[in-house]
Amino acid sequence: MVHQVPVTDPADPRLADYTRLRDVNLRKSLEAEHGLFIAEGEKVIRRAIGTGHPVRSLLMARRWLDPLADLLSGVDAPVYVADDDVVEAVAGFPVHRGALASLQRLPLPPVKDVVATARRVLVLEDLVDHGNVGAIFRCAAALGVDAVVLAPRCADPLYRRSVKVSMGAVFAVPYARMTNWRDDLGVLRAAGFGLFALTPDASAVPLDEADFGDRAALMLGSEGDGLSSHWMDEADRLVRIPMSDAALANGVDSLNVVAAAAIACHDLVRSR
Amino acid sequence: MVHQVPVTDPADPRLADYTRLRDVNLRKSLEAEHGLFIAEGEKVIRRAIGTGHPVRSLLMARRWLDPLADLLSGVDAPVYVADDDVVEAVAGFPVHRGALASLQRLPLPPVKDVVATARRVLVLEDLVDHGNVGAIFRCAAALGVDAVVLAPRCADPLYRRSVKVSMGAVFAVPYARMTNWRDDLGVLRAAGFGLFALTPDASAVPLDEADFGDRAALMLGSEGDGLSSHWMDEADRLVRIPMSDAALANGVDSLNVVAAAAIACHDLVRSR
Ligand SMILES: C[S@@+](CC[C@H](N)C(=O)[O-])C[C@H]1O[C@@H](n2cnc3c(N)ncnc32)[C@H](O)[C@@H]1O
Ligand SMILES: C[S@@+](CC[C@H](N)C(=O)[O-])C[C@H]1O[C@@H](n2cnc3c(N)ncnc32)[C@H](O)[C@@H]1O
Repeated sequence: MVHQVPVTDPADPRLADYTRLRDVNLRKSLEAEHGLFIAEGEKVIRRAIGTGHPVRSLLMARRWLDPLADLLSGVDAPVYVADDDVVEAVAGFPVHRGALASLQRLPLPPVKDVVATARRVLVLEDLVDHGNVGAIFRCAAALGVDAVVLAPRCADPLYRRSVKVSMGAVFAVPYARMTNWRDDLGVLRAAGFGLFALTPDASAVPLDEADFGDRAALMLGSEGDGLSSHWMDEADRLVRIPMSDAALANGVDSLNVVAAAAIACHDLVRSR
Repeated sequence: MVHQVPVTDPADPRLADYTRLRDVNLRKSLEAEHGLFIAEGEKVIRRAIGTGHPVRSLLMARRWLDPLADLLSGVDAPVYVADDDVVEAVAGFPVHRGALASLQRLPLPPVKDVVATARRVLVLEDLVDHGNVGAIFRCAAALGVDAVVLAPRCADPLYRRSVKVSMGAVFAVPYARMTNWRDDLGVLRAAGFGLFALTPDASAVPLDEADFGDRAALMLGSEGDGLSSHWMDEADRLVRIPMSDAALANGVDSLNVVAAAAIACHDLVRSR
């Protein structure tokens, strides 16, 4: 039975989960405090619910009730139905995809468990941009990377924009978050992973010559500064994607982290 | 001599070039009408001016005068100096990088000229997202693609967000825009290019097996629908980047267009 609840007041406290979705600072504390995250659009909402995330509530325009009827009939949570302008007033922008869900986060497994049966993993250091994190998950899922490990400060894969850009791939690839930036690469090493630092650094070996072996963890650095020197030191091998001489002459000195991840994953997964 | 002009009123008509930088519709018509584009941040402004784009004006906080002094001394256009809140009031958002330039667009060469000496080119159909276009230019520059050709409706590489995401690579890679979506692939064919359509379609040959030959044009499609059937029909060959079986089972049925471009360019350029 669908708990359909019409709402007309953007200030209705039952809509608090959906407040100002573009206000990154507000959202970070609100989502952490309640252990929630937001899914946007039919496809992503289906994926989020299908992967077992408990539903706190949904918020949508009336026109979404029909296309989502099958899904909603199995949901034991309120479905708030509001006009587009009410949704916009709450969310702080026009929600083109029209349907939103607030879901409960599931506890993340420890790093050790997530990589237990994996052979190819990505390790993301302090990436800042949620869109980049989402796009990297989409690559990982599309190309068949087994798991993703996040540094303690890497941007949240369940932030609305990450989820959206990933097209739901954040629900398809198992991931874990390190608790200790300094020591947790040791968990991967102990599990038998070779640690490969991806860097444009000229001293690194070209990707073609990297021998990934049986278990490989590929480390990617932040958009601005790249990998920390601590992680570069911890790596077994530095690996670079060769860039054209003209690029360097033109001041283009690195690839965007998503492009680098895509090229490297494609090679990594072929090497299985 | 620097024409330094203090401004305090966000409504000052001399700042009209910088109005509401996030309002895509307004910007599109304003920039087309005046043949201008906006560069943001020291690095990008230097690159834009260095590649010969005439300066209409600059707008910056006082703290930028010193680091840009060498550049400004060669500029024959007004440098508007304003407090951060005035810049924010004009631009419509806090301009973190603090310095903006309004520049004159240069006439684009015809497709035929841009590909005359090229051997590896990208052809972008109707990409919508400026960030994706910028990121693809960055890949093209980094990996050594010779030129980019845009369909008539592909998003503008000189839109502020494209320029920014490209890190200035839109000034490093020669590009042209087709005037005729239906027939202009013929210009590439007449110049001896093989036309390779990149598509997740299962009937396409895997990237590893594509033989790019001496001159290759790689076609990429829009974020939503991919390449049009007309362009797919025009292609000499359909090429796919193999995706994992698990991805398909999880509903991840394509890569993001930047990831696909990165992987394909990396292979294309190695095949020289
Ligand atoms: C934008 S780059 C950071 C650039 C930074 N200046 C540096 O030197 O690392 C972000 C991440 O993408 C990856 N990356 C970018 N270009 C690369 C290349 N040519 N080869 C290997 N990795 C690359 C690296 O993991 C890097 O940490
Ligand atoms: C997001 S995809 C479009 C998806 C669309 N549903 C389709 O079937 O083409 C955008 C573009 O990226 C490229 N692309 C994405 N995944 C690809 C893959 N696995 N192989 C080759 N090209 C791909 C194609 O050029 C495509 O037009």
